[in-house]
Amino acid sequence: MPKVNRQITLASRPVGLPKVSDFQLAYVPVPSPAAGEVLVRSAYLSLDPYLRGRMNAANSDARPVGIGEVMAGGAAAIVLESKDPKLRAGDAVVGMLGWQEFAVVPASEVRKLDPDVAPISTALGVLGLPGLTAYFGLLEICRPQHGETAVVSGAAGAIGMVAGQIAAIKGCRVVGVSGAESDLSWLLDELGFDAALNDRAALDLHSELLALCPDGIDVYLDNEGGETTDEVVRQVNTGARIAVCGQSSQDNLESPAIGPRWLGHLIARAATLHGLLVSRYAEQFPEGRKQLGRWLKQGKLKYREDVAQGIESAPQAFIGMLQGQSHGQQLVQLPGA
Amino acid sequence: MPKVNRQITLASRPVGLPKVSDFQLAYVPVPSPAAGEVLVRSAYLSLDPYLRGRMNAANSDARPVGIGEVMAGGAAAIVLESKDPKLRAGDAVVGMLGWQEFAVVPASEVRKLDPDVAPISTALGVLGLPGLTAYFGLLEICRPQHGETAVVSGAAGAIGMVAGQIAAIKGCRVVGVSGAESDLSWLLDELGFDAALNDRAALDLHSELLALCPDGIDVYLDNEGGETTDEVVRQVNTGARIAVCGQSSQDNLESPAIGPRWLGHLIARAATLHGLLVSRYAEQFPEGRKQLGRWLKQGKLKYREDVAQGIESAPQAFIGMLQGQSHGQQLVQLPGA
Repeated sequence: MPKVNRQITLASRPVGLPKVSDFQLAYVPVPSPAAGEVLVRSAYLSLDPYLRGRMNAANSDARPVGIGEVMAGGAAAIVLESKDPKLRAGDAVVGMLGWQEFAVVPASEVRKLDPDVAPISTALGVLGLPGLTAYFGLLEICRPQHGETAVVSGAAGAIGMVAGQIAAIKGCRVVGVSGAESDLSWLLDELGFDAALNDRAALDLHSELLALCPDGIDVYLDNEGGETTDEVVRQVNTGARIAVCGQSSQDNLESPAIGPRWLGHLIARAATLHGLLVSRYAEQFPEGRKQLGRWLKQGKLKYREDVAQGIESAPQAFIGMLQGQSHGQQLVQLPGA
Repeated sequence: MPKVNRQITLASRPVGLPKVSDFQLAYVPVPSPAAGEVLVRSAYLSLDPYLRGRMNAANSDARPVGIGEVMAGGAAAIVLESKDPKLRAGDAVVGMLGWQEFAVVPASEVRKLDPDVAPISTALGVLGLPGLTAYFGLLEICRPQHGETAVVSGAAGAIGMVAGQIAAIKGCRVVGVSGAESDLSWLLDELGFDAALNDRAALDLHSELLALCPDGIDVYLDNEGGETTDEVVRQVNTGARIAVCGQSSQDNLESPAIGPRWLGHLIARAATLHGLLVSRYAEQFPEGRKQLGRWLKQGKLKYREDVAQGIESAPQAFIGMLQGQSHGQQLVQLPGA
């Protein structure tokens, strides 16, 4: 049994974009499980935008990570030792295990995976919270109808890529917006999006979006916020549905940004806008995972992972992900994989 | 039969707040109805915030009023002459008759009123589109639950006063926001609101709202927008529902205002926001009017009208209403009343 657990802890609260020095590599003993607990060895860590909020002192929807504490995050892992009858050594599980190589957690806080359905890393992406966020955002909030135009911002990210494909499955014309030029051909050629737009490089976002959405916009799944969202709102059709999943353009600002006030336009369009916390759909997660898994098997749903190597790479990979440099779901592969 | 019809026409498109000189008084012959039409004499004109938008050249949700055309607006009227079997002389009706003393319209475009239910002017306010907007905004979008806190901005206006009372009927703690100090005691003493706040006079809107909403805000019906809405959004509870009916603080700005970007906060609160166009609920109008009429009879719903006299007073009364000077539904009483 290994004796040393390597962790990434929070060294200081970042101002704006985190720096590598906001994190620290710590060496601690591998703990032992008590009754009802399991010792697991993580195979993949998941680096997601929402973790940036957990690094702040004041946070409304989840407890902040304390200074000196292990960074929070989801991970897929293998059970090394179990003190609970529901799990045994060798089982694959997923849970909020944090940025560390080993973890001891109550067995009730991890979910057992079936490695025959898909590689266990998918439990962190297309079959995990990002996939479920896209699933419920699209189907419960946006309710896409055949022939409608759907726009997804952050389209090459973990949520966006799934959302766009679900909109396509439902018969929408799908327009993906991404800030990375290299992602556009992937969205078009691999995922089959109808159009793709680089909003960071756009000289005239209004005209370019208008050209790609000649019939207006009925559905918008927003991962970015900021000027891209301002422009989409200007172009929505009557009765449009907007799911707000993330605001990546705003997450690392040192002071809150300002922008045009467009609520009056939502009245004129009788549009609806929902802030999406996927945990609100927790009871429907099994149904969502089942359907996503089915589409995956049928080849209707593709995914891409960006895999960094080793726990020590997590801070830099996380910062890069926040800057939009990840191509697909950002993971860190650990020796346990 | 009278021979001269006095109208208020649109003389020029206003920039920002309309001026009296943007309107013109015109004298035209009283027209005669053709088959299927009625000649009516208006008793009350209704001056509503949404008419400001109709004065602009570019408008998304309704045809603009043309230069030289009669100003648009709802009115309650008495039929003088009918060429349609469904109506006869003496019937009271309501419809989009415009700012004029007489009108000829297809009988199918007016709705017959029962003067025994309530004074016919109520068809323009508490039992008209403002009342229905409050009704569907509250019940279909905000879905208030017993014990929740509901905030209404523009609370002393035609929509706001009804919305606050419906929230109270549903068991909410109701906080009314109004920019006129003299309205506050009316909201508290006559309408029975639990608290009232003058947002124009507030020295520290954040603290004052927090003091009046110690348990946070679950329901918000917004008629104002701007900084009041920014502050309400900061204080909403998880799962809050926001109905956006109007943005009176923004309607007369010469250039679009900017404000803080708070979509991220809607995610953290899993809050929903709906732009409310009451026409979307047209099929449910009879049900809404019936219930509003029932509450009115039961004394659960009170209303206030601000009545100017004579067609020539309409422009100034309209401008005053846009500046928040009306106390309740702004009407113009005509000699036909």
